[in-house]
Amino acid sequence: MALSLTRAAAARWAATTTRLVRTPPPAATAAAARCAFSTDEGFGGPGGRTMVVSLTGPDRVGVVADFSSLLSSTFGANVEASRMAQLGGDFALILQLRVDADAADPAKLQASLSDTFPGFAITARETAAEVPAASGSQYTVELEGPDSKGIVAAVTEALVRSGANVGEMKTEVGPAPFAGYEEFRLAARVHVADERVSGLGAALEKVQERFGVVVALEAIGGDK
Amino acid sequence: MALSLTRAAAARWAATTTRLVRTPPPAATAAAARCAFSTDEGFGGPGGRTMVVSLTGPDRVGVVADFSSLLSSTFGANVEASRMAQLGGDFALILQLRVDADAADPAKLQASLSDTFPGFAITARETAAEVPAASGSQYTVELEGPDSKGIVAAVTEALVRSGANVGEMKTEVGPAPFAGYEEFRLAARVHVADERVSGLGAALEKVQERFGVVVALEAIGGDK
Repeated sequence: MALSLTRAAAARWAATTTRLVRTPPPAATAAAARCAFSTDEGFGGPGGRTMVVSLTGPDRVGVVADFSSLLSSTFGANVEASRMAQLGGDFALILQLRVDADAADPAKLQASLSDTFPGFAITARETAAEVPAASGSQYTVELEGPDSKGIVAAVTEALVRSGANVGEMKTEVGPAPFAGYEEFRLAARVHVADERVSGLGAALEKVQERFGVVVALEAIGGDK
Repeated sequence: MALSLTRAAAARWAATTTRLVRTPPPAATAAAARCAFSTDEGFGGPGGRTMVVSLTGPDRVGVVADFSSLLSSTFGANVEASRMAQLGGDFALILQLRVDADAADPAKLQASLSDTFPGFAITARETAAEVPAASGSQYTVELEGPDSKGIVAAVTEALVRSGANVGEMKTEVGPAPFAGYEEFRLAARVHVADERVSGLGAALEKVQERFGVVVALEAIGGDK
């Protein structure tokens, strides 16, 4: 393997990075993209169905590979949007799957997955393929500070009072550098009506004061 | 609300951002942090228990607020690490909760949540508080290109063959700008033994060639 030692811009919590996979020339990618497109045998087509699957259970190397291989080979399912994380001693996944119209129903999918992964808590639901269109604009909310009970409830309460819809959210707790407390971090993408943004900002300022954290609310440009 | 129109660095998929929450002076934050720490009444203490909860169900404004408020007020639970996302018409959450040692057991927590949110698929498990220590170093894997069936299985298979442990992963599918296909994006943080990194790079190059995508494997600096 060739290592082209290009330095990427340092990420916020990553000091230096090194590129370890050789990037193909753009022409090769575009050709392969056309190929992948033209040989697409109908997944995501109008007759397909969308399932949302959750799985939580004891973490081990290969757990994601086992799930995704089974989903792909046995159910012909394509993983679309997903979030996966180590949560304490567990590994947890939420997956949006696209399956063929005549594929197993959610109850059968859940039963089959539970048979194959007996130590896991597994659910499957059918849902609409598309996230419903939301009015207003997209914003990011970022929060950082000492962990306190009820902080997620306070942030989400501020969001709901402004009619803001959560597109995605992530929280983490970890030791704060150079501090004697556990640090809490939250990042979210939300949709909010333009006329309610200033109200949301004011509500988040109250969260900031109450919990002694720093909150940023920022518009995502070009994505109204 | 005061708008201090500081421009933040443009995020990758966000052209311009505007700060909408006034940042408190550092001294105020530090004082509040000390306060939050000193009034901490034992959550996360040695007697606490860790639960992993998954919830999937029909999306609506306020769903996260309702869950987190119930968890905090009724169960005294503190949300630590979490991932939440709109997946098609559903909203899905995976949460790591810290509860008191004498709190409800997972079965009761699950039953109570299911009673309160009848349309949702809900699971709760008890797990270890800490992610087990992994040997090796941390790397990010990023992939972008046309969506193809089995691509998640191929990436995770490459990871497991190199003994890489997935810390977190996120996938999204959406329209590619200026292209006629659906674009797939994957971002992951993995732990891999130093002597197996070059093997992982080679395996990811094969994924790159097979699916016509671009993959980047990069070391996260300073976090061995």
